[in-house]
Amino acid sequence: MTSVSKVSIRRARRDDVGSIIAMLADDPLGGTRERLGDPMPQAYFDAFERVERDPNIQLVVAEDGEGAVLGCLQLCILPGLSSQGASRGLLEDVRVAKHCRSRGIGEQMVQWAVTEARARGCKLIELLTHNTRVDAQRFYERLGFARSHVGMTVRF
Amino acid sequence: MTSVSKVSIRRARRDDVGSIIAMLADDPLGGTRERLGDPMPQAYFDAFERVERDPNIQLVVAEDGEGAVLGCLQLCILPGLSSQGASRGLLEDVRVAKHCRSRGIGEQMVQWAVTEARARGCKLIELLTHNTRVDAQRFYERLGFARSHVGMTVRF
Repeated sequence: MTSVSKVSIRRARRDDVGSIIAMLADDPLGGTRERLGDPMPQAYFDAFERVERDPNIQLVVAEDGEGAVLGCLQLCILPGLSSQGASRGLLEDVRVAKHCRSRGIGEQMVQWAVTEARARGCKLIELLTHNTRVDAQRFYERLGFARSHVGMTVRF
Repeated sequence: MTSVSKVSIRRARRDDVGSIIAMLADDPLGGTRERLGDPMPQAYFDAFERVERDPNIQLVVAEDGEGAVLGCLQLCILPGLSSQGASRGLLEDVRVAKHCRSRGIGEQMVQWAVTEARARGCKLIELLTHNTRVDAQRFYERLGFARSHVGMTVRF
């Protein structure tokens, strides 16, 4: 790590949607799935509203001192019966802007999520990372995550 | 498969909590995590109420013609921005009672979840299954799921 960029983590706002989609699209997997455009497709704003309405989901961004958005992460708090009724945290859509990698921004975001999930009563955080994302897997292992599960998906 | 037992899938009720916990506990991994007792620990009922209050989570059971609970599954519908704002379905706590395995009950539950997730606008269903659950992995592959991701967890 060359230097650490201190960021602040805050709830995403409607006017962050463009920056978030740009990060999701700037990726070997996401590049084929997202659709950029001006104006942004309405589907993204509709999804943002569904996220905002859900009290168990927090979509956050990391911003630097000038207010530039450098990363994003979605934390879902999932109640459930197993593990003696402990809630689980699920991390999704964790991204750091390409020009800002290796500065500890992802680590600050994940640590925010761990703190938040514990405060909300979670005993576990889980995530799926694509088989091809070996750097991400190493990153999460460094933060204490274990490769304990197989992540399986079906797309329609 | 010796024979198929046709089951009906319905929302879990408070008086199913005992049957669900018994299935979660009757398992090499769950056995160490759950706590049975009479009365059932209150934590399970508190968790059941959190699940019931969440409009994006459905905890369902499979019951036979006599009303016996033979399986359970939790489906979470997760809104999010990625994949053009498509929601994702997350399957958790899928269990079939030990004496009823290999009768197509798990398959009926997962097919219910796929139908429900599609009806709720999901383009993807995802799940984590522990590395040791090789039978479960084969089961999901048979139903069209791919081993596309690494499932990573951290417990507190």
